[in-house]
Amino acid sequence: MAGGKISLYDVEQFIREAGAEKVTEDAVRNLEQELEKLAQTIADNAVKYANHAGRKKLIRKEDIVLAKPIMQGKKI
Amino acid sequence: MAGGKISLYDVEQFIREAGAEKVTEDAVRNLEQELEKLAQTIADNAVKYANHAGRKKLIRKEDIVLAKPIMQGKKI
Repeated sequence: MAGGKISLYDVEQFIREAGAEKVTEDAVRNLEQELEKLAQTIADNAVKYANHAGRKKLIRKEDIVLAKPIMQGKKI
Repeated sequence: MAGGKISLYDVEQFIREAGAEKVTEDAVRNLEQELEKLAQTIADNAVKYANHAGRKKLIRKEDIVLAKPIMQGKKI
């Protein structure tokens, strides 16, 4: 699955708004890749949940909700 | 933290490329919110890891890597 593409500009804004003044390009690309990986995983799973519910090609919010992984984050 | 904004168009492409022909708007918004939540969490944590490493305002890739949550996903 090729997947979509999230704009590097958009990704960089998250880091700047968190308080960074300078951000290396590979930092931005690393975050972009993480977001795209999550987006593709959720999208792929959501299509399977829709199929399971008898919808072949229509994706609804509840498919996205079911498709999200559990995250063990910590807000440091 | 207001956070950035990921384009709804970009988010919808991930779902379409996973095989969807139709996607409801609230499905796209729900996935967008999930991606933004992850982006903000990683960005906020990355700034703290940078500070911990003695860098006040420069964010590097290794800060992003440390800041990622563990995901318990399943590829269904």
